[in-house]
Amino acid sequence: MAASHAIDIPLAMLAVFGSAKVMAELFERLRQPAIVGEILAGVLIGPSVLGWMSPTDFLSALADLGVMFLLFRVGLQVKSSELLKVGGTAMVVAMLGVLVPFVLGWGILRLWGEPQVEAIFVGAAMVATSVGITAQVLASKGLLQARASKIILAAAVIDDVLGLLVLALVSSLAKGTVSVPALATTAAAAFGFIVLVAKWGTKTMERIVPRVGKRLRLEEGQFALSMVLLFGLALLSAYVGVAAIIGAFLAGMALADSVGHRVHDLAHGVTELLVPFFLAGIGLHFDLRSFTEASTLLLSLVILAAALLSKFIGCGAGAIGLGRGDAVRIGVGMIPRGEVGMVVAQIGLSLGVIRQPVYGVVVFMAVATTLAAPPLLNLVYRGVAKPGPEEEVFHLG
Amino acid sequence: MAASHAIDIPLAMLAVFGSAKVMAELFERLRQPAIVGEILAGVLIGPSVLGWMSPTDFLSALADLGVMFLLFRVGLQVKSSELLKVGGTAMVVAMLGVLVPFVLGWGILRLWGEPQVEAIFVGAAMVATSVGITAQVLASKGLLQARASKIILAAAVIDDVLGLLVLALVSSLAKGTVSVPALATTAAAAFGFIVLVAKWGTKTMERIVPRVGKRLRLEEGQFALSMVLLFGLALLSAYVGVAAIIGAFLAGMALADSVGHRVHDLAHGVTELLVPFFLAGIGLHFDLRSFTEASTLLLSLVILAAALLSKFIGCGAGAIGLGRGDAVRIGVGMIPRGEVGMVVAQIGLSLGVIRQPVYGVVVFMAVATTLAAPPLLNLVYRGVAKPGPEEEVFHLG
Repeated sequence: MAASHAIDIPLAMLAVFGSAKVMAELFERLRQPAIVGEILAGVLIGPSVLGWMSPTDFLSALADLGVMFLLFRVGLQVKSSELLKVGGTAMVVAMLGVLVPFVLGWGILRLWGEPQVEAIFVGAAMVATSVGITAQVLASKGLLQARASKIILAAAVIDDVLGLLVLALVSSLAKGTVSVPALATTAAAAFGFIVLVAKWGTKTMERIVPRVGKRLRLEEGQFALSMVLLFGLALLSAYVGVAAIIGAFLAGMALADSVGHRVHDLAHGVTELLVPFFLAGIGLHFDLRSFTEASTLLLSLVILAAALLSKFIGCGAGAIGLGRGDAVRIGVGMIPRGEVGMVVAQIGLSLGVIRQPVYGVVVFMAVATTLAAPPLLNLVYRGVAKPGPEEEVFHLG
Repeated sequence: MAASHAIDIPLAMLAVFGSAKVMAELFERLRQPAIVGEILAGVLIGPSVLGWMSPTDFLSALADLGVMFLLFRVGLQVKSSELLKVGGTAMVVAMLGVLVPFVLGWGILRLWGEPQVEAIFVGAAMVATSVGITAQVLASKGLLQARASKIILAAAVIDDVLGLLVLALVSSLAKGTVSVPALATTAAAAFGFIVLVAKWGTKTMERIVPRVGKRLRLEEGQFALSMVLLFGLALLSAYVGVAAIIGAFLAGMALADSVGHRVHDLAHGVTELLVPFFLAGIGLHFDLRSFTEASTLLLSLVILAAALLSKFIGCGAGAIGLGRGDAVRIGVGMIPRGEVGMVVAQIGLSLGVIRQPVYGVVVFMAVATTLAAPPLLNLVYRGVAKPGPEEEVFHLG
């Protein structure tokens, strides 16, 4: 009963999942981070090298679901009260981590002789941290409970809202009109939603989940309830303009104190299956064909260096009050840009204010920062106390 | 950082998963099969009633993955040796279960005054059993080990190959040329692949999995290995022409004796998330707008009755040597047609030999047979001994 497209789905699943796991195994044996292997698997099977796969709607949907489940599981291990406590520091970290990369990216492009609007878009594309990679590394090392890790998570959430505002601002600049009231409304809605859920989500769920859970006749009722909250908050996030993964993270935090191990285990199965699609999916976007000119390659390396240094310095400076160790950890943890920078660059491309080679530069920066982060994190988290065996630890890919 | 399509994925997830679980809960409370509730959720949110959702590539991809994982988990609970033992009976059940529905469907359309080729296509669309629904019901009742259940599974696998041959035959009829050697090659490749994997898959995996599993440095290495086999065999199945779910089922059977509980649990998480997309996805295809004429409605009811009776009588007769009880169970278990009949009708539509209203009739038949099967299965399996607590039972949806 096979139509020819019946082959597409198992083929894509096998190629992406299989290559990611082979590369993860290889990297484990080379004592390198498995997560880097999974991203490189995407580069390898992608258009640059073997050309087996290119990013499709199906693969990017699986990647989106994968990173949602990843952040949901991270949220399950984090107490929102502890995140709210570090909110002040996280706000400074996030703001400096937006300002420094933006100014540096914009400055470099201007010095390179590129037009104003393009420079602004590249600056904006360097702003948003992609928290998935860092969360994956910290979770797999059982280090989510460390102080620096909590600040990274909180700052990444704030960073997403700031990134939203920067994007809204530069998009309206490109179109020629900036509405300050509209921007203020966007900011208020996004922050309001996040603070509301972070502050009262846990208590609400502590009341609702045991009661409703007991009454449900459904098999795996608690899991069903959790999934509805996960998708519901992801949807609300997308409506107020922040990333769906922020909603997924908030859903996990809200449920942290009220769901049993069963929900963790079932969500873990989904995560194990789908996270490789998120990781390899980043690699799939990488396309060496952008680098036909030496000057593009040079610009890429300069922008990459700026991307690494600017987040490290900006975020690190924001957390310097915590001592050098945690400041360094936070600076490194905020480095990965991942898919978020690519989205900004794509919008610039579609508005016609970014040229194709500059788009390639941004993609290179986004992929390379995600590749750089895991080994750097291993380095700077060396010696940080892991939680004892009684604390909950989960391992991802 | 939200583009407007960022909303699509969480929205689709929430609408389909949420409505399926609400309906499942409702049906549990009404003491009706939850699975029927989940299919009806698709009808409810689909184009016929509320019009919230229509079948998209994303949703049908999740549905395909869902039914693959469902059959994989069923395979994990079945010993291939036991399935091969009942192969003879299953072959007779499958052949009569193909012959009787085909002749009846074709005869009714001819009596209705429809053209020859259209009658042949409707007959062909009534042939293929969709084993997912029955497997789901039997698994959730812990009845996969009953003799009738094993014959249903084996017959459904054979049925898929026969369905492939019928489809190849009628497609070439519609195009005007029939190549007997090509059909024989198709049959030989499909049966050869299945028998090979069923016969030696388990032994091979018993050797490979513990050895390789021990050497893998990867986290959750056994799960990764299982997924690679699952997608690999699903892909091979699609290449030889049978459904990807047959490969998934074979992969599960091959791993039944060699993987630990961890793989079951992780695969269970994926199944819990995705099976509602398979079930509601069936309902989503249902479109009442096909029934603008009374004669179409009448034909639908006649075809539905024929679909129910012909599988029941054909398959039941094939198993009559096992006594009336098991013959009835097998006859009922083979009733659901699900998405397979729709694929045949779609091919007929694309070849221009089936008209739109007749396509609607086939879809109605496919959805209605899946809705009828769970309550009928509950009825005829009443009193069948469930396995003791030491046997492995898993619960789905």
